[in-house]
Amino acid sequence: MNTQRARRELGISKAAARIRGAAVELFATKGFGATSTRDIAARLQLSPGAVYPHYKTKEALLYAISLEGHLDALTTVSNADDPAMRPVARLISTVSAHVQWHARNRELARVVQYELRSLSTAHFKEIASIRRKTSQIFADIIEKGCATGDFSPGDSTAAVLAITSLGVDVSRWFPARGFSHPDTLAARYADLCLRMVGADVTR
Amino acid sequence: MNTQRARRELGISKAAARIRGAAVELFATKGFGATSTRDIAARLQLSPGAVYPHYKTKEALLYAISLEGHLDALTTVSNADDPAMRPVARLISTVSAHVQWHARNRELARVVQYELRSLSTAHFKEIASIRRKTSQIFADIIEKGCATGDFSPGDSTAAVLAITSLGVDVSRWFPARGFSHPDTLAARYADLCLRMVGADVTR
Repeated sequence: MNTQRARRELGISKAAARIRGAAVELFATKGFGATSTRDIAARLQLSPGAVYPHYKTKEALLYAISLEGHLDALTTVSNADDPAMRPVARLISTVSAHVQWHARNRELARVVQYELRSLSTAHFKEIASIRRKTSQIFADIIEKGCATGDFSPGDSTAAVLAITSLGVDVSRWFPARGFSHPDTLAARYADLCLRMVGADVTR
Repeated sequence: MNTQRARRELGISKAAARIRGAAVELFATKGFGATSTRDIAARLQLSPGAVYPHYKTKEALLYAISLEGHLDALTTVSNADDPAMRPVARLISTVSAHVQWHARNRELARVVQYELRSLSTAHFKEIASIRRKTSQIFADIIEKGCATGDFSPGDSTAAVLAITSLGVDVSRWFPARGFSHPDTLAARYADLCLRMVGADVTR
């Protein structure tokens, strides 16, 4: 999807952005199913029909939020990658960015990761393709690391899945269990992910 | 909590078990907030007030489901552990059991893992203590493995967190991404978890 079309789907006005913000708060707290567009309008002290000019349905609003969230996560991980770096450094940088994004944006992340079942089939497919691009960044780094001899994973597919899963699940529990700073957690998780792909962490 | 009290809180009758089953299906599909006790009764073709004699509130029903689910997960992982075995074998067995439980019971797991925010504070605390017991099994095995020299994790707390998190997140995505059998996934994840704690996986 090109950037212009993405911006159009999202709703580029400030009013639309405020609606998305209020919707994320309510969806994260009450769940998508239990939140009405009236609840969202009421939170912003707007009239009951105020969401309609921006998003014709609650699903369209969820789609806009999911698109924005997943594109932001993808961009964050992609920007953290530099193919000129060694595979170990690339994995540390991208895993850290992924974990930090899910810790810092945990309300948004919970909505975009856990409410996917409420999207239309066409919208779900589009979001799924963005998610695959994020996983593909980890897959490419692992493949490169195998080629250079830096990594020796048992099963690359399982490693990519686990790296992605660990990051996503941060949005469910963070902060807790002795980890309350995104940077500390990111550093620990980067170490665990290096171990998963068989990098030498003792150097 | 003793077993007798737990059974009382759960509702020991067959009718109560059917209500919990229907509630899990609806909570997993629509979310806790968007499901009413009337919806649950209707799914079982019962009168609108049929849940009330068994569970006075929707929260009491969620608590019973959470208690049952978390106790079952704890029992499953605990039964998979045998302190007489070597740490490597113990970690493989318990990680596999944890992953398989979340794959096989994914609807129940999603409800008991993602709807915790809707429990009362007292009920949440009780469920949290059961969750800690499950994590403690992994922590004890890792501690033992460090003592025997079988494991060399960088940060044991992060490793326990990641092992638990990987298992829980299975209920969000399973089956997908090339993994559709609980046993295959469990074997791959057990290998990744051994790597995380610095076990020698090449032997």
